[in-house]
Amino acid sequence: MTPATEWLRESVTHLPTRDEDAYRAVAERAADILRPSGALARLDDVAAWAAGWQRTSTPAVRHPSALIFAGDHGVTAAGVSKYPADVTSAMLAAYRAGKSTITAFAAIAGASVEAIDVGVGRPTADIRYEAAMSPARFEESVAAGRDAVDRLDADLLVLGEMGIGNTTAAAAVAAALGGGEVAAWVGRGTGIDDEGLSRKREAVREAVTRIVGVLDPFEVLREVGGTELVAMAAAIIAARLRQLPVLIDGYVVTAAAMALAAASPDALDHCLVGHCSAEPGHRRLLERLGKQPLLDLDMRLGEGSGAMAAVPLVAMACAGITDVPTFGEWFG
Amino acid sequence: MTPATEWLRESVTHLPTRDEDAYRAVAERAADILRPSGALARLDDVAAWAAGWQRTSTPAVRHPSALIFAGDHGVTAAGVSKYPADVTSAMLAAYRAGKSTITAFAAIAGASVEAIDVGVGRPTADIRYEAAMSPARFEESVAAGRDAVDRLDADLLVLGEMGIGNTTAAAAVAAALGGGEVAAWVGRGTGIDDEGLSRKREAVREAVTRIVGVLDPFEVLREVGGTELVAMAAAIIAARLRQLPVLIDGYVVTAAAMALAAASPDALDHCLVGHCSAEPGHRRLLERLGKQPLLDLDMRLGEGSGAMAAVPLVAMACAGITDVPTFGEWFG
Repeated sequence: MTPATEWLRESVTHLPTRDEDAYRAVAERAADILRPSGALARLDDVAAWAAGWQRTSTPAVRHPSALIFAGDHGVTAAGVSKYPADVTSAMLAAYRAGKSTITAFAAIAGASVEAIDVGVGRPTADIRYEAAMSPARFEESVAAGRDAVDRLDADLLVLGEMGIGNTTAAAAVAAALGGGEVAAWVGRGTGIDDEGLSRKREAVREAVTRIVGVLDPFEVLREVGGTELVAMAAAIIAARLRQLPVLIDGYVVTAAAMALAAASPDALDHCLVGHCSAEPGHRRLLERLGKQPLLDLDMRLGEGSGAMAAVPLVAMACAGITDVPTFGEWFG
Repeated sequence: MTPATEWLRESVTHLPTRDEDAYRAVAERAADILRPSGALARLDDVAAWAAGWQRTSTPAVRHPSALIFAGDHGVTAAGVSKYPADVTSAMLAAYRAGKSTITAFAAIAGASVEAIDVGVGRPTADIRYEAAMSPARFEESVAAGRDAVDRLDADLLVLGEMGIGNTTAAAAVAAALGGGEVAAWVGRGTGIDDEGLSRKREAVREAVTRIVGVLDPFEVLREVGGTELVAMAAAIIAARLRQLPVLIDGYVVTAAAMALAAASPDALDHCLVGHCSAEPGHRRLLERLGKQPLLDLDMRLGEGSGAMAAVPLVAMACAGITDVPTFGEWFG
């Protein structure tokens, strides 16, 4: 086992817990703020969550940062996507040029965006027949995710992805870890037609069948996932170690996150889910994880767009605690 | 009939329609933007909506403005609120000092906030026994709402309110216009207990019974509404005349809006609903109006907070059209 992979396996079972004092301070202040107690409902919970993971009684979202991990997938050979594989590299260029939906959303949210290449033009193996990546490639992907987070100066991490074929990999991970009827985990991704959907279901079935008996969630990621899924799982853990709360995006990010939850039940406590995707497997995954999304707008883009759309809500939740007086402060 | 009231009655039946060219241009561009067609789902619809009402094919939210109308209510004598009536004036001061939830949210959204006093400390009559306001007071309230909008330099209007007792007035308006079981329109407002809820239901029943046979929606607003409800109805119409799309907040704003929809079925076409309130009558009202809220977070504050929380979504929807290239622009 090489260092980054070892770091991931070791860290996920020794995760820091939230700062209970900060959490409690915000929850108590929320009950006394100049508004009817409970009137902000979930947003007060979000503020306390941010406080607990930022480890401060004055949580804030001033420097949200998005990391978009991009990789290519050998399973596209099975005809599982509406778009050709080289769209991944075109989109990577668009993110970097600031000519994309996620960068447009980020400008509104006041967020920075970095797109990380974890294998664009260097596809994983076809998961129907062999492991998506070697242990060395897994190691490299873990390091990429961890190091990207370690370079950030941020107070909220938005996680997104891009990779033609990656909803197939996500479905395979979700089906392998979540069980049940495989077809229920497979959706239309970027919008494939009925025949394509049949091919996609068959591809996921083949991949999942190939690894029956593989129980280790990181091995599931290596076998039927993708480099960007591995990098995102590592990024989530790196964020936890840096007291950085995380906003998770759609199906692919959540499938990667699910591997962590399978490895350690509280591994996603520092993560909120920005939105529920129109990809049907996402709602299923969120139910398994017990996560309620902030937004439910039928979006299905990826790129971190659904999580970015929720960033202002987290910022408002925090400001609703720190920038509003209590009854005592106002009347006292 | 005095001039402002006449303006309201006349305008509501002669409303401008949206700019179909701008609407269509954005809807068509949305289908060709550098992302899978339909991936932003409702947000693309929101962008086209903004284009149609801003009358431009490059819609934007750069200067969102919130108007918070505040008034007092004689029906508080019935013990319908958890808070004493003088809280209205304290909150008005808090908005103006920038020490409130709505001003904290507005800072995140980049919005301005103006709180308009339409009768704080000058309560309406008790709607159980008499009309909330005279025709002259109605006229004054219409003018206040209209003139506040006419003074704005904005591209999106957020409408909110404050007024201890005003969910009772809203319930009476909704019950009078919406029909059905009165109790179903009455909720806990700022959080009244079971006994208070019984008193509130009884008060609404008395008010609604008193005006049986009053069919004119503006007369319903005058009889059982409140000055801030009248001002908000006028503000919605003034916004329509100034090509200003509107984000509606919770139950009280929506009840005021319902009077307009009752007067003219397309009167709210330039309005979106920011959120669905935890006040149960709100969901009922939205179903009647055929409006789907952008957010559904169980908030129940008022002040325009639920609409303000949705402002960044509208801004992102617009930027997702104007600030992202089409496939042709990017690859061409």
